[in-house]
Amino acid sequence: MSIEWTGSGPELPLRVDRNRPEPLREQLESALRESIRAGRLAAGERLPSSRVLARDLGVSRGLVTECYAQLQAEGYLVTRGGSATRVAAAARPPVDAPSPPSMPAGPAVLPETPEIPGLPALAGSVGIDFRPGVPDLSSFPRERWSRALRRACRDVPSDLLGYGDPYGDPVLRDVLAAYLRRVRGAAADAAHTVVCAGYAQGLQLVLRALAGEGVRVVAVEDPGDPDHRAAAATAGLDIIAVPVDEHGVDTGVLAATGARAVLLTPAHQSPTGVVLAPGRRQALIAWAVARDATIVEDDYDAEFRYDREPVGALQGLAPDRVALLGSVSKSLAPALRLGWILCPPRLSAEIARQKRLADRGSPVLDQFALADLVRSGHYDRHLRHMRTRYAARRAALVDALGRYAPEVEVRGLAAGFHAVARLPPGTDERAVVEAARRRSVALYGISGYLLDPPERRTSSARLVLGFGNLTPDSISDGIATVADLLRGG
Amino acid sequence: MSIEWTGSGPELPLRVDRNRPEPLREQLESALRESIRAGRLAAGERLPSSRVLARDLGVSRGLVTECYAQLQAEGYLVTRGGSATRVAAAARPPVDAPSPPSMPAGPAVLPETPEIPGLPALAGSVGIDFRPGVPDLSSFPRERWSRALRRACRDVPSDLLGYGDPYGDPVLRDVLAAYLRRVRGAAADAAHTVVCAGYAQGLQLVLRALAGEGVRVVAVEDPGDPDHRAAAATAGLDIIAVPVDEHGVDTGVLAATGARAVLLTPAHQSPTGVVLAPGRRQALIAWAVARDATIVEDDYDAEFRYDREPVGALQGLAPDRVALLGSVSKSLAPALRLGWILCPPRLSAEIARQKRLADRGSPVLDQFALADLVRSGHYDRHLRHMRTRYAARRAALVDALGRYAPEVEVRGLAAGFHAVARLPPGTDERAVVEAARRRSVALYGISGYLLDPPERRTSSARLVLGFGNLTPDSISDGIATVADLLRGG
Repeated sequence: MSIEWTGSGPELPLRVDRNRPEPLREQLESALRESIRAGRLAAGERLPSSRVLARDLGVSRGLVTECYAQLQAEGYLVTRGGSATRVAAAARPPVDAPSPPSMPAGPAVLPETPEIPGLPALAGSVGIDFRPGVPDLSSFPRERWSRALRRACRDVPSDLLGYGDPYGDPVLRDVLAAYLRRVRGAAADAAHTVVCAGYAQGLQLVLRALAGEGVRVVAVEDPGDPDHRAAAATAGLDIIAVPVDEHGVDTGVLAATGARAVLLTPAHQSPTGVVLAPGRRQALIAWAVARDATIVEDDYDAEFRYDREPVGALQGLAPDRVALLGSVSKSLAPALRLGWILCPPRLSAEIARQKRLADRGSPVLDQFALADLVRSGHYDRHLRHMRTRYAARRAALVDALGRYAPEVEVRGLAAGFHAVARLPPGTDERAVVEAARRRSVALYGISGYLLDPPERRTSSARLVLGFGNLTPDSISDGIATVADLLRGG
Repeated sequence: MSIEWTGSGPELPLRVDRNRPEPLREQLESALRESIRAGRLAAGERLPSSRVLARDLGVSRGLVTECYAQLQAEGYLVTRGGSATRVAAAARPPVDAPSPPSMPAGPAVLPETPEIPGLPALAGSVGIDFRPGVPDLSSFPRERWSRALRRACRDVPSDLLGYGDPYGDPVLRDVLAAYLRRVRGAAADAAHTVVCAGYAQGLQLVLRALAGEGVRVVAVEDPGDPDHRAAAATAGLDIIAVPVDEHGVDTGVLAATGARAVLLTPAHQSPTGVVLAPGRRQALIAWAVARDATIVEDDYDAEFRYDREPVGALQGLAPDRVALLGSVSKSLAPALRLGWILCPPRLSAEIARQKRLADRGSPVLDQFALADLVRSGHYDRHLRHMRTRYAARRAALVDALGRYAPEVEVRGLAAGFHAVARLPPGTDERAVVEAARRRSVALYGISGYLLDPPERRTSSARLVLGFGNLTPDSISDGIATVADLLRGG
């Protein structure tokens, strides 16, 4: 049963319905708010007395009085002295309400994968997506993580459910420091470890702490993450691009820039896949010491090395000059948003202060769960398992390129789960990417990673091929499609 | 069994131990790294040949060769041509390594509770802590939350385990928008809802978006959160303090400041506990419309109202002029770090962009769990349960004050779980706080919340009494102690 009051005109239906689960009072309040917001009840308009409205709707007068009082307290209605209840002047509908912007369709832009404007949408659903930086999402250890969370919910002391230590949970920091000493050769100290929400946040916190020290410009690798410019700008910094060659970032060019901070991916450069050479490592440390400069080391893809043991972090060489950023985004899943910073001791208090301002500290239960996973050895076992899995995918990529496109040169395969394929001279990178999308294969050209515009024009056509989240069969099919396109198919 | 190589002098013990679980190679690598970092092996120093070291340690020569190669790749050692392996120049110990700063003892500073410098430490463990802004941590629904997380781990589609939508999970945004329409009278639209890591992050994102619109100054309530100045500074903004009286923020003073943004806690002012009066609500909206200004509404304590239904959010009156910030910190637990922003439509894309730069989006499993909890009705039931619980604690506070300290006037009890007690004229607020700490009762004076220095000097002594995380018995005991101190005990 639904009852309406149409008031002074037919355009004001105040409806209550006894068959709906919400209490009548709530229904009437909502209906009044909506009518006022939509302008159906205009500012200054007089409402019927509570007696009349109650009678018309078949509800108690007390209910209407309460509704009026509630909406008066909220600022929708005004009642002065004994006079009638009216719609408040403040409660007018927005005059120029813009229409909602369309939401981003599908997954958002990824850190390492710029959206290239003007690309055609993928035909139908994404068939085979070579998006770099995405690990094998189907291998996320759901059951293990769920169990670790269950234990965290059960065991966390109540007093840790408040606002936590902005540095992060002390137990997790101990566990992470021990892990990073053991696995990454880092000079890790729990007192200078800050837990954060993944790499993106870690970068923000470090850049802000550097800005607080007077740093104004941060050098970045070119090609590199196109988000770096916006990330630096948010911290009040400019970036300067330094070219990457086959040994990693060009330390000579870096020294000539005069920058006092540099952001690097030494373990597996993003996107070229180059591993920073030993001589460059030493040159970097010498530069940092001589210039009183700071190296921000993105320990990108470090866990996955195929030809040898993972190379230890640069941070171990000079813990007072390097901030090491790591996360579980590649080892477990990006969706967890958990990472860490090994801070140069002089910066750790400021980085923790920035973390506190940013979000008061990372979620406590997730921190408990990660500590549990690492301490129990499941994290190591999962990484070993994944290394085998990625090695098989890497082999499938090498195999498919050899079989279908032997003319394509591939680089950056020593570590991680992306590589760079250099297309034959004269190939139009953008045309290949567009043609592939029409065949439901998502490719990512190097041009989206080039920061220096002249370089963007002269660079030869290259594809950044992420293979972490593709099965060997999909990799093979995708490369067959690329080869077909290169032959003009 | 442990074997040492003491090299050229007794200060270089390179030790491997077959009884330890780590592989010998890992042990030797770690020992070399540590010796270099600690300066026990100096830059340029020549290492023994792999043959000699292998013999001395009783390990295979291949193992030593691999270790040397690994540390060369990492930059600790150099080998040029056929010459000896030496310690790299880069790998020197830090010259001026500052000693680690002492870590914050105990819980970090809370958003609403400034640490007042110079206060004596609590005698022994905290007996009774009247810290405002902390909900009843022992009531966190561990079992329900754990179950919701378990379902999230089981049900989340793999493709949502990557980098997510920076706006937040679409399902949670729908659920939150419906909840906020129903419970907070908000004009909520999932398209303009951004999920964030609690209030602190929400505030940062909104302030940055406002800074991007050219806002330079944000008005804040005085007394108010002393963190607001630092939070605004991080976004590149200044603050201007506007006094709060018994009707809430003084809208006349606000209008005179010329500010184009204001940050408010209308539902239960932090810290005075005042509820914004209906006339002030209308004046605020009129001001925002006339000045093209933005109101940032911290929906603080809104869920807990004792004398009436919760007053609907200001945002419902003018969704294009108000950004509403809410979180589960009071309703579930601060440790979850989950919140939301209802954005003015013109700002939502920029706020989501800032969220993406800040941390790429909130953790997905937590978002699934919260959507589950709200949709299933457990969230509402938990809030109803907590309202009863807090009402009993509030009653215990009123009762204890009436019994032990009838001369103390208490305000701000209409909502939430803190109130303000005005101490008798002539009382020295700081002296009372210090004396109470010596008796293991933590009190928080209003002076820590006063932004305007002259006000700080003339204001009468007041205590901000948080009672959310104290049992009725503790509240009663704590107030008895305060009363005793006021009588000079």
